[in-house]
Amino acid sequence: MPAAVTRDLADFIAGSRWQDIPPEVRREGVRGLLNYIGCALGGCGDEAIGLAIRVLSPSFGAPQAGLIGRTERCDVLNAAFLNAASANVLEYDDTHLATVMHPAAPVAPGLFALAEARGASGLELVHAFILGVEAGCRIGTAVMPHHYRRGAHITATCGIFGAAAATGKLIGLDAVRMNWALGHAATQSAGLVESLGSMSKSIGVGNSARNGLAGALFAEAGFTAAESAIEGRYGFAAVASDTIDLGKITDGLGERWEILANAYKPYPCGVVLFPVIDACLELRKRLEVSRIARVVVRGHPLLRERTDRPDVGDGRSAKVSLQHTVAVALLQGAAGLAQYTDAAVADPAVQALRDKVTAEDDSAIPVEGAVVTVGLDDGSSLSERVRHGRGTPGRPMSDIELDAKVSELAAFGAPFVDTPALIAAIRDVVALGDAAHIMRMTVLS
Amino acid sequence: MPAAVTRDLADFIAGSRWQDIPPEVRREGVRGLLNYIGCALGGCGDEAIGLAIRVLSPSFGAPQAGLIGRTERCDVLNAAFLNAASANVLEYDDTHLATVMHPAAPVAPGLFALAEARGASGLELVHAFILGVEAGCRIGTAVMPHHYRRGAHITATCGIFGAAAATGKLIGLDAVRMNWALGHAATQSAGLVESLGSMSKSIGVGNSARNGLAGALFAEAGFTAAESAIEGRYGFAAVASDTIDLGKITDGLGERWEILANAYKPYPCGVVLFPVIDACLELRKRLEVSRIARVVVRGHPLLRERTDRPDVGDGRSAKVSLQHTVAVALLQGAAGLAQYTDAAVADPAVQALRDKVTAEDDSAIPVEGAVVTVGLDDGSSLSERVRHGRGTPGRPMSDIELDAKVSELAAFGAPFVDTPALIAAIRDVVALGDAAHIMRMTVLS
Repeated sequence: MPAAVTRDLADFIAGSRWQDIPPEVRREGVRGLLNYIGCALGGCGDEAIGLAIRVLSPSFGAPQAGLIGRTERCDVLNAAFLNAASANVLEYDDTHLATVMHPAAPVAPGLFALAEARGASGLELVHAFILGVEAGCRIGTAVMPHHYRRGAHITATCGIFGAAAATGKLIGLDAVRMNWALGHAATQSAGLVESLGSMSKSIGVGNSARNGLAGALFAEAGFTAAESAIEGRYGFAAVASDTIDLGKITDGLGERWEILANAYKPYPCGVVLFPVIDACLELRKRLEVSRIARVVVRGHPLLRERTDRPDVGDGRSAKVSLQHTVAVALLQGAAGLAQYTDAAVADPAVQALRDKVTAEDDSAIPVEGAVVTVGLDDGSSLSERVRHGRGTPGRPMSDIELDAKVSELAAFGAPFVDTPALIAAIRDVVALGDAAHIMRMTVLS
Repeated sequence: MPAAVTRDLADFIAGSRWQDIPPEVRREGVRGLLNYIGCALGGCGDEAIGLAIRVLSPSFGAPQAGLIGRTERCDVLNAAFLNAASANVLEYDDTHLATVMHPAAPVAPGLFALAEARGASGLELVHAFILGVEAGCRIGTAVMPHHYRRGAHITATCGIFGAAAATGKLIGLDAVRMNWALGHAATQSAGLVESLGSMSKSIGVGNSARNGLAGALFAEAGFTAAESAIEGRYGFAAVASDTIDLGKITDGLGERWEILANAYKPYPCGVVLFPVIDACLELRKRLEVSRIARVVVRGHPLLRERTDRPDVGDGRSAKVSLQHTVAVALLQGAAGLAQYTDAAVADPAVQALRDKVTAEDDSAIPVEGAVVTVGLDDGSSLSERVRHGRGTPGRPMSDIELDAKVSELAAFGAPFVDTPALIAAIRDVVALGDAAHIMRMTVLS
């Protein structure tokens, strides 16, 4: 008989008080929200977001909530979907490395939508966000590594629990209803790694935010769910993974906080590529790029499994291509938004260098590290080992780096925003009486 | 390298013509739609539907489509969700026995919503419905039995493919966009058996209709998806099952039709209970109910796994309880809507008899059969074996039985409907220029 982890987690979330949250956890909550808003501002003009709005606008309900970086308003469910898609579409969001989840895109959008529709203080919003990240990441950890390895897009499949937990907390669900909200999340959990590299990824991530919020709203109305939706014989864990450790959901709740293991991406691409980029940027200082004969990247098997994509069709798929990433980092000395455009993919020099890049597995290398070896045309070679990529927990982004990232993103996707004022407001969000103020600063009125 | 089954299936659906559909398949398509409308009429007043409408109504968009048996109108996506939930909530819908799927609830609602929003002929609607059932059931067959056994609620998880295929056909997607629609369905596939017996089940089924339709609309707009979303290394099949037979998706397409294996439930409960009910109704003629000491039900292991639930809390959970079903069938000589109410569950005589019922596995008994043995207070016993429960493919519902079922359902949930006229219109739907006419006959104006 497994422990009643769904109920125990629901009890914890429903019972959590702000004074129980340690200062460093609160601080990381604020940083996570800042990174989220920045990513959504950067992504809001993406082709996929425009198309999604066109498809969904006949289904827009009451104008309860805004869309970050845009003019449209819609109901809270569609707003959650679209803002989550914006925050994730550039592959620039936060990463919980143990699960490779991007927790903020599912968790944050429903909170801001509710803040607009029903009102919420900044403190309440940060508290709910922290708890949502906690729930999503813990459930993800419990079904790793098999869940992700099989092909589940864990940001969507486990992020939905975080969305339900966070929005349920914000609307004040009691423990019974919080349990139902988690149950509704479980039965809606979906998303495939296969969809990465296509627009379809945004549907999975958008749904995780939308359907998690819907789960909380259904629970609030008295819509019942299975009490053991996670651990039950036919529940989420049994369906999701052959390597289940339910203790990871409840062990040390309130003592150990997953948000402290959440990092912010310094590059708009797959997180396993970060140490590769760092290594290439170092190597570039020591060689002439025109003399490169071949590049061999050694890393954790996950690196090759996820990113060994020599044939790249467009900027979107380039974000999960080792070959493209190595080529732009070595050729252009950067791996920013400009390096993952369709134009960058079509560049003949980049194409030529992509063809010279291969991947090798080395289980001894952790997923946050990599070794890049460049062979030159005279037969010599240079090698660079990176133990902790920038933006991983071993080498976190500083506040200054994070502010600079948010400014870059806003300038890219929503240049009308008063970014310094917005950053200042988010840094001080805990003191804000009306959390919707943040949203109003991000939209084009 | 697996065959490109996602693309092949998309090609087949996009290329199918009405003249390719055999007469008996067309006929079963019409019967399936009749059963669907009947079930939605019966379920539209359920508490879960009322709650769902209350939760979703702030998110209702343009009034494009009606809700069967009700007054409200909403956008096509919410209409698909709610009409699917209505059609499935009573556990009275159709069943594709090889997968234990209920294909119509996911597949039909989006079609009627589109018929209202964009226009469609009855012939186009029936054609699309047949193809949607085909797609959903074939994909389900390819991942059975492990997919369902693990805990995936296959009606939702595979029904979504049928919804995407059917609605994509109705709006005329070409093969490339149909492939994307199936990809969007794959990345949204969700639903847990654990949620059965609670209201949460309706969210999974509602989402399968809603999100399948959304997938088709996204694809129509040019929203791209993975081409190999089903068979890819990180695609649906790999995530869904350890027993994958991709050939079942494409072998004999256009020659063998899954809708011919779709049966209509004669009882509003889990399909594995049908032969048990038939046996109890027979036994009842031969014994005095007050003398029953114990009841032993032998059946396929799936029967015990899914329905061995001696503790029943309400009418909803009673629909998947072997103990309750045996008790009402023996005591009341029926297993209709009246036998699965909260009042029927609370009846002391039913409670007492439930306690005397146990289940035994017998792998030699097929899932559509059962053996019920009643032990009497004098030590004697009577036994009844049923090989094919009524409403299974071996003993299908006749047209007259189906009409009677639809009439019972309409009288239960939507007594204002002119049922004889509605049944006549559906029986003649292929000749109908405007398929939305059917919907108008079902709503309360």
